[in-house]
Formats: sequence, C-alpha cells, structure tokens
Amino acid sequence: MDRRSLFAGTAALAAGAMLGARQASTQPAANQSPGVYRMKLGSFEITAATDGIAYRPLTDGFVRNASLVDVQQALKDAFLPTDKVPIPFTPLVVNTGSKLVLLDAGNGQFGAPTSGQLVANLTAAGIDPKAVNTVIISHFHGDHINGLRGKDGALTYPNAEIMVPAPEWAFWMDDANMDKAPEGLKPGFQGARRVFAPIADKVTRYEPGKELLTGIHSVAAYGHTPGHCTFAIESGNQRMLYLADITNNPLLFVRNPDWSAVFDQDADMARAARRRALDMAAQEKMLVAGYHYPFPAMGHIVKDGNRFDVVPMFWTPTL
Amino acid sequence: MDRRSLFAGTAALAAGAMLGARQASTQPAANQSPGVYRMKLGSFEITAATDGIAYRPLTDGFVRNASLVDVQQALKDAFLPTDKVPIPFTPLVVNTGSKLVLLDAGNGQFGAPTSGQLVANLTAAGIDPKAVNTVIISHFHGDHINGLRGKDGALTYPNAEIMVPAPEWAFWMDDANMDKAPEGLKPGFQGARRVFAPIADKVTRYEPGKELLTGIHSVAAYGHTPGHCTFAIESGNQRMLYLADITNNPLLFVRNPDWSAVFDQDADMARAARRRALDMAAQEKMLVAGYHYPFPAMGHIVKDGNRFDVVPMFWTPTL
Repeated sequence: MDRRSLFAGTAALAAGAMLGARQASTQPAANQSPGVYRMKLGSFEITAATDGIAYRPLTDGFVRNASLVDVQQALKDAFLPTDKVPIPFTPLVVNTGSKLVLLDAGNGQFGAPTSGQLVANLTAAGIDPKAVNTVIISHFHGDHINGLRGKDGALTYPNAEIMVPAPEWAFWMDDANMDKAPEGLKPGFQGARRVFAPIADKVTRYEPGKELLTGIHSVAAYGHTPGHCTFAIESGNQRMLYLADITNNPLLFVRNPDWSAVFDQDADMARAARRRALDMAAQEKMLVAGYHYPFPAMGHIVKDGNRFDVVPMFWTPTL
Repeated sequence: MDRRSLFAGTAALAAGAMLGARQASTQPAANQSPGVYRMKLGSFEITAATDGIAYRPLTDGFVRNASLVDVQQALKDAFLPTDKVPIPFTPLVVNTGSKLVLLDAGNGQFGAPTSGQLVANLTAAGIDPKAVNTVIISHFHGDHINGLRGKDGALTYPNAEIMVPAPEWAFWMDDANMDKAPEGLKPGFQGARRVFAPIADKVTRYEPGKELLTGIHSVAAYGHTPGHCTFAIESGNQRMLYLADITNNPLLFVRNPDWSAVFDQDADMARAARRRALDMAAQEKMLVAGYHYPFPAMGHIVKDGNRFDVVPMFWTPTL
C-alpha cells in the first residue's frame, strides 16, 4: 500500500482494519497488535519490526550437544512450552537521516504462516518498502533472504541496493559446493539461487569488516554459515550491535553459549564467534539486537561465570 | 474519535498520522509506536495498553530503607540511568466476550507529559472508550484514577460502571482522615474528591475478596494504600494475577522485595502483601501483570533465596 492509496476512500477501510476497529465492542481482535518499536541511537532512528514467529518441534538433536531433558528444562525455566522452540524474527530498520536501511529481510511468503509480517509492520510504522534505500543481509538462510522477493518474483524493496557478505555469495552460489553438500544443506543452495540468481546485478557483495554505510560496519562472525556477519551501528557517541544469528532463541543459546543448534553449520566456529560477540557485548555494555530474540529483540548481555544472559531493554513509550 | 468519524474524509488524514505515514522517507517518526499487546487467557482477550511513563528523580529517601548507592546499583544492574526511576503505567483491558473491562484508568490529563497515552492506545487497539462496560480501580492514587475524567470534567468511559475498593473509598473520602493526614498525603485526599465527588452515584464500592464480574476476583493487598487490591483473572483453566502496585518498578522492588518506596503508605503492611503475592505467583507459576512493569508489563515471578525476579513474557506476534 503506497501513501497515495492510503488516503484514498476505499483504503480508509483498510486503515480502519489496521487500527483494529471492530464490529462489536467485545468482538475479539483478529491479529496481534503491530510489533513495532522505535528508539534513537545518536541521530539515527532504529525501528524493530517483527516478521512474526515460527515454532520448531523440539526433538532430540535440535541442540546437538545437550540432552533433550536439559533443553526442556531451559524452556521450562523461561516459562515456555517444552514441546517446541519459539523462533521469532526481528529485522531492524536504521534511518540514518539520509538513508533507510533494512537489516535482513524476513521470510516473505516462504515461511511459516505465523511469519511474513514484516511488510505489514513496516507499513504500520510508516515505512514504505519502496522508500528503503539499502537492504543489508547478514547471511543466506531463508528467514533472512526470502523476504527480498515475492512468490511472483517481484522485489519487495524495488528501489533498494541489496548488500550481501561476499563469502556468503561465494559459498552458496558455487555449484561445486552445492554438488558436494550433504542432502540437508542442498535446499539452502537452491533457496539462495531462487532469491538471488535473477537479481544478481542488483546485489553488491561486501567484504566483512568494512563500513558498509556511514555508521554501519559489518563484522565477520563466521560459523553459523560460512560468511555470517553481525553489524555494529554507531551514531554520535552511541553504539549498538546487531547480532543476527550469533544465537538462536537467547533463552536457550545465550544462557548456554556452548550449545550448538542444528542451524550452526560449523558448530565450533559458531561457538567461538558467539562467545567473542557476547563477551564483547557484556564487557562494553553495548545494546544488542538479536534476530531471534523476543520482540522488541533488544537488550544488554551480562556474563555470569561461563554463561551469559540477556537483560531485555526497558520499553520506553516515548521517543 | 468514534468509529464513524474514523471513516470520514478528514479523519483519514488522522488515521494516516496514527499509522505513522511520513512526509519524507527519512523523516523521523514523531512518536513511539502504539504500546498495545494482546493475548488470550482461556476465552478472555487481554490487552495491555500503555498509558506512558513518568520519571522520578532519584533522591536519597525514594527507597526509605536502602542507601542511594544501593538503589543506583540496582538501576545500573538493569542498564537504566541512575539519576531517575522510570515508572511506566500499563492498564489492562479484559474482554470477557460479553463485557469490556478496564483495570485502572491511567493518568489522563493530570500526569507527566510523557503519560496520558491510554485513550490513544486503546483507540489504536480498536477499543472505543465508549464501549468500555466497567472500570475496576485497584486503589486511589492519581496514576490509577485521574484518567477517569478529563480536565473539563467529562467521563472518559461514559458508559462504564466504575468499581472501587470500599476501604479505599472509606479512607480517602473521609473528611476526618483528611483533616488529620500529614501534609504529604493531603493531595491524595483532594485528588480523590476531584475525581469521585461529582460522580459518586456512578461508583460501585466493592468488598475486596469478592468476585467482581465473572472471572475477575478482587484480592485484598493492603499497605500500599489502606484498600489496595490485586485482581485474579480466570477463564477456562487459565489464570493470571494483576498485581497493581504490589511493587513499583520491578527491577528495584521485585528484586528487592523488602525495599519500601515512598509511595507505600504502610511500609510493613505493604511488604507483607508484596511477599504474599510474589510468593504465591512464584509457587503457582502464575502469569502476572504489574502496573509499573516495563511494557507489555507481563511475566512470571521466580524466587531466588529471599529475593524474586521477573521473567518477562515471551512476546508472541500472533494470537
């Protein structure tokens, strides 16, 4: 929905629906309220917008190096059901004042029915997908890249440059790698091709470690995937760290930083990158955003002996 | 704004503003996104809607029985500034399927400029103040009752029965109590009169301990004020406990349950009520809502030796 149609007659009804107007006063709401949270970081405006959630049935082996009972206990400690792992998705928008930058693109039309909410939530936040200047991708898993294009092939952010880690491109777009990959990894190669092959000319490959845009640095954090990156965001004297998939659900994997989820392609390298990032965040008391943290997916990391925990950000109802 | 005007031509502009449409793509948003969160509790729909926040400068004596240094350290542990205490306000709406019930009414037009957001957030949630059937008040402090009427005297929830704890009414509306009250307490008496005196015939006084409406029980929790109540909400086999002001900011007063904030009128009685409520919530693993918890102001209580902590609820982006 673009701005003009928003103000057209028929669209007012849609706007009413988005605001949640109900037929009867006690009619239950159809949907959760938009998951949008804003904050200032120096002169930048940061918007967390949820793409929804998926649930992974908890089976033995989801955490490769922990018993099912231990994982169930960790879920219980977090007051979560023990039969499934909730995996929310929270891309960030960085408004630098001159550019609208989206960090990771969500599931689009290719994920669980409880996901794919990003565009609706951006719209609720007053952010027009057409106005996004840059999409920066942390890695090539489907829940980060599938939102770039619809099932009809159309670009979701048609005016945006798409920036991807060069080592991700090199790994996933290489046919020799695909041929020799284990079966479980093949869909990842196919998915990367589906998203990127037709739009290769729109994609900029960046070298991790570089400043991508003023105030946004990529940081190599390989292991989860061969080219997985985190992003340091800095404006004025304020900094935050977008952790991407340094951990999956933090109530499992920040609290148990040595646990390896099945998603980690190189478990040892991922564990080292995780400890490096969490140690730095704890030591420097940096605000962090975690892609799979519960909305609004921001907080601080504290270290407790050999473990870590997240102190969720205190929700501020003003800007 | 009622539903009819929402759909009228000029109101579409207002709706656009509420959705956050912006003049230029990188223009910063004017406001925080609406603070609205929904969940199911049995067949009930619970909506947390923020009334905003106030900041109390931290001075020696804010916590009567803790040193300034200890309070500053508790704020630091929560990654909060140490010069002020953030005090958010989160009323709940319980939609029982046949009634819309508001628990506490916020600051209205009488609080800090960063408060008084409740009606806007209810509207964003599709809840028309005119459709509210019942407002249940936990106690008579201004941040819970001032939202009942505007500066012009008009009722914010004109069709709602207002239910208040009988012992609150008996204490605050009694002239002899006002006459003998210390100076610091006098504004409380005057405020209660301003809100309630002209609408006494609209107010039902309830005896704490009773079921007020199907599924909503009042629980005596005296001490914070002489008639302060919490509410147990129950539908199907699900229960939650609305803690009202059993604690102020939980990062101070759940973590340090023996600390007494200046707001507690009878510190010893309030402390006993606090430990009783937190002990029960921890033991029964009940979902709780705390009026002064960070939005969405819900979670579970865990006991750790002689202290407690809150595990914030895992935000679910679907219903």
